[in-house]
Amino acid sequence: MARLADRVWRLRESPTRRIDRVREELARRGADLIMLSTGQPGVPPPRWLRERLAELLAADDLKLYSYTPSAGLSELREAIAEDVRRLGGPSLEPEQVVVTAGGQSAMWSVAAALLEPGDEVVLVDPTFFAYPPIVEYHGARVVWVRARPEEGYQPDPEEVKEAIRRGRTKMVVLVTPDNPTGRVLREDVARSIAEYAADAGAWVVVDEAYKTLIYEGRHVWVYRYAPDSVVAVNTFSKDPGLAGWRLGYVYGPRDAVRAVNRVVEHTVYCPPSIAQYAALVYLREWKLRMEFIEWVRSVYARRRDAMIRAVEEHLPDARYVRPQGAMFLVLDLEGYVRGLGVDSEALAERLLAEERVATVPGTYFGTVTRYALRLSFVSEPEHRIAEGVRRIARLVQRMRGAK
Amino acid sequence: MARLADRVWRLRESPTRRIDRVREELARRGADLIMLSTGQPGVPPPRWLRERLAELLAADDLKLYSYTPSAGLSELREAIAEDVRRLGGPSLEPEQVVVTAGGQSAMWSVAAALLEPGDEVVLVDPTFFAYPPIVEYHGARVVWVRARPEEGYQPDPEEVKEAIRRGRTKMVVLVTPDNPTGRVLREDVARSIAEYAADAGAWVVVDEAYKTLIYEGRHVWVYRYAPDSVVAVNTFSKDPGLAGWRLGYVYGPRDAVRAVNRVVEHTVYCPPSIAQYAALVYLREWKLRMEFIEWVRSVYARRRDAMIRAVEEHLPDARYVRPQGAMFLVLDLEGYVRGLGVDSEALAERLLAEERVATVPGTYFGTVTRYALRLSFVSEPEHRIAEGVRRIARLVQRMRGAK
Repeated sequence: MARLADRVWRLRESPTRRIDRVREELARRGADLIMLSTGQPGVPPPRWLRERLAELLAADDLKLYSYTPSAGLSELREAIAEDVRRLGGPSLEPEQVVVTAGGQSAMWSVAAALLEPGDEVVLVDPTFFAYPPIVEYHGARVVWVRARPEEGYQPDPEEVKEAIRRGRTKMVVLVTPDNPTGRVLREDVARSIAEYAADAGAWVVVDEAYKTLIYEGRHVWVYRYAPDSVVAVNTFSKDPGLAGWRLGYVYGPRDAVRAVNRVVEHTVYCPPSIAQYAALVYLREWKLRMEFIEWVRSVYARRRDAMIRAVEEHLPDARYVRPQGAMFLVLDLEGYVRGLGVDSEALAERLLAEERVATVPGTYFGTVTRYALRLSFVSEPEHRIAEGVRRIARLVQRMRGAK
Repeated sequence: MARLADRVWRLRESPTRRIDRVREELARRGADLIMLSTGQPGVPPPRWLRERLAELLAADDLKLYSYTPSAGLSELREAIAEDVRRLGGPSLEPEQVVVTAGGQSAMWSVAAALLEPGDEVVLVDPTFFAYPPIVEYHGARVVWVRARPEEGYQPDPEEVKEAIRRGRTKMVVLVTPDNPTGRVLREDVARSIAEYAADAGAWVVVDEAYKTLIYEGRHVWVYRYAPDSVVAVNTFSKDPGLAGWRLGYVYGPRDAVRAVNRVVEHTVYCPPSIAQYAALVYLREWKLRMEFIEWVRSVYARRRDAMIRAVEEHLPDARYVRPQGAMFLVLDLEGYVRGLGVDSEALAERLLAEERVATVPGTYFGTVTRYALRLSFVSEPEHRIAEGVRRIARLVQRMRGAK
């Protein structure tokens, strides 16, 4: 066989994909799995939206099946700019918005548009595991800055400032609301980091995938603090729950958006048209959209609270920071498992095999979360969330007993 | 503003995208455009398929909106392997198939999986314009081999052999049925090229986007001639016409497919789920699928013949090779415009501006087609195709008169 490109293996398999395979195998064998691993919304997109799409499918309209402009339908770019404004965000021209084939496509395209070999990228430890492989694939190097649970996982702007090197640092990635911690970035923290990065000629990439899923506090629009240097990554996967349909967007300065558009065009030609029409219907129905997302937030907040109650009851020595947004709680079990010679990866594997609970080990997000599990509180109903936490406690007790 | 990555500009804007913008502007002003430029199917996907999708949307089934495995639903990979076999192609294991977010995503992912800086890639002149920028983006260099209209646009295997350099050539790209020429690769030509490439340790990438749109002759399954060295690029854009929905696939040796899968995962996470369910329904209904594609072929063949009749009548000195497959006729106007100081790019621009006919200039595909226009025969009804050709003749006569 002829040779493959070496660098393709820098694209490590997503760790959730590995869990998914074990999970699928167990599910095939009929095991009752409690799914606390996924960032998949626990409720389908609104019924009225699906009904409108079914009507579109009934019509003999070629438009629904046609290629769109590679930057997305111009009506959709306008609707997104309007939506960001209505949500309390910045005023954008439609030319500052480029539609992508999902959040992953947004992240990849931003990395390809900005990064060159030898660049440095500042990431917060812990952070979403999709970033390091993309950075390394493009020949750049990750520089880590820790966010500590004692600080509510807020990164320290002075540490970020120290990590930024003029002429070397090409971008700083901030995720808010955060995956995995659910932390919403504080305004003063966001502003300082944005200003430090802009002063040093670096980009700030803000991942806003969960911006409408905030239970306490409010979203910080980092773009406002440095509009020439901030590129924002967004998705329709979480709100309105079109995860599999692959639609997202990027906004920022025109030139950066133009470069991102070029990457989207050559990687996928255009974002999926059916998903674009779905997003267009959704965003234009502002009132229904707000009712839907309010309802989703209330469902998820109750599930989060059920998870916290179960943790307090069954794992009183576990450490966690109450998530203000997103879909996950980081459950730090250091107090239980340190000294047992297991990290969270081994723990997650045993949980899946012995207790049928799927979680994502904290090792995948950084070193700060080495003994932590990322638990999704959106994909299971409350009683199963409580049962999942009970099973985690049971395994941990068993492991301590066996020591 | 901070800097962008220089290499992103190697990704030139797709020339059809530029035409699309002028076209959209003219359409907004109410101009009656005859669209002979697009590779967009002229008929929607079958009604029974759309009805089944509408039913799926009505159910409260989270599956339809969920992330799928990054390589695609395993049922879909099985259905694709089965479909290739039923179409008369090779026997594939599902693990040899990876689903992508459309043909462009298939092409990009193959290039990323195979190419390294310094590699050489043999392309046929003329060829689909999407290949050169992708090759150059990955740091490889294009080596051109000409296909001549006198030979029915069949490349000469001996010339390809000469262009292949052991240890330098990483891949040879063959498109069959061809875009832009509609040529179906001859079996002996395909076999020789596959064997030469395999002998020299190079990959053959076969673009089979139009494999079921053949009007005369039959598809050549190049994979058969060198199963360790051939990677095939496919799409659901043309058959069944889900162009905008972004779904395609790649098949080939397992390791190559695994590498392609890694690229798909990091560029788009997974192919669009709704498109995957659509393809699954479509492929499983073999009888309905065959009836649909037969009907599409008959519609397109009639339109092709209408185009050829109009050319014979209005442009008797134009040169063309009757397309055996795909969606396009390459109309070589050298006899009319040579000596007028215009190439096909200038001609296409005047056609759009003065005669409201959208075409794609041959300069975008190579040098062999410098004085040719690529005319799509699928997107307009027969009388408008004839009118389009009449308008081309009118412009050409006017240009010659003004000389």
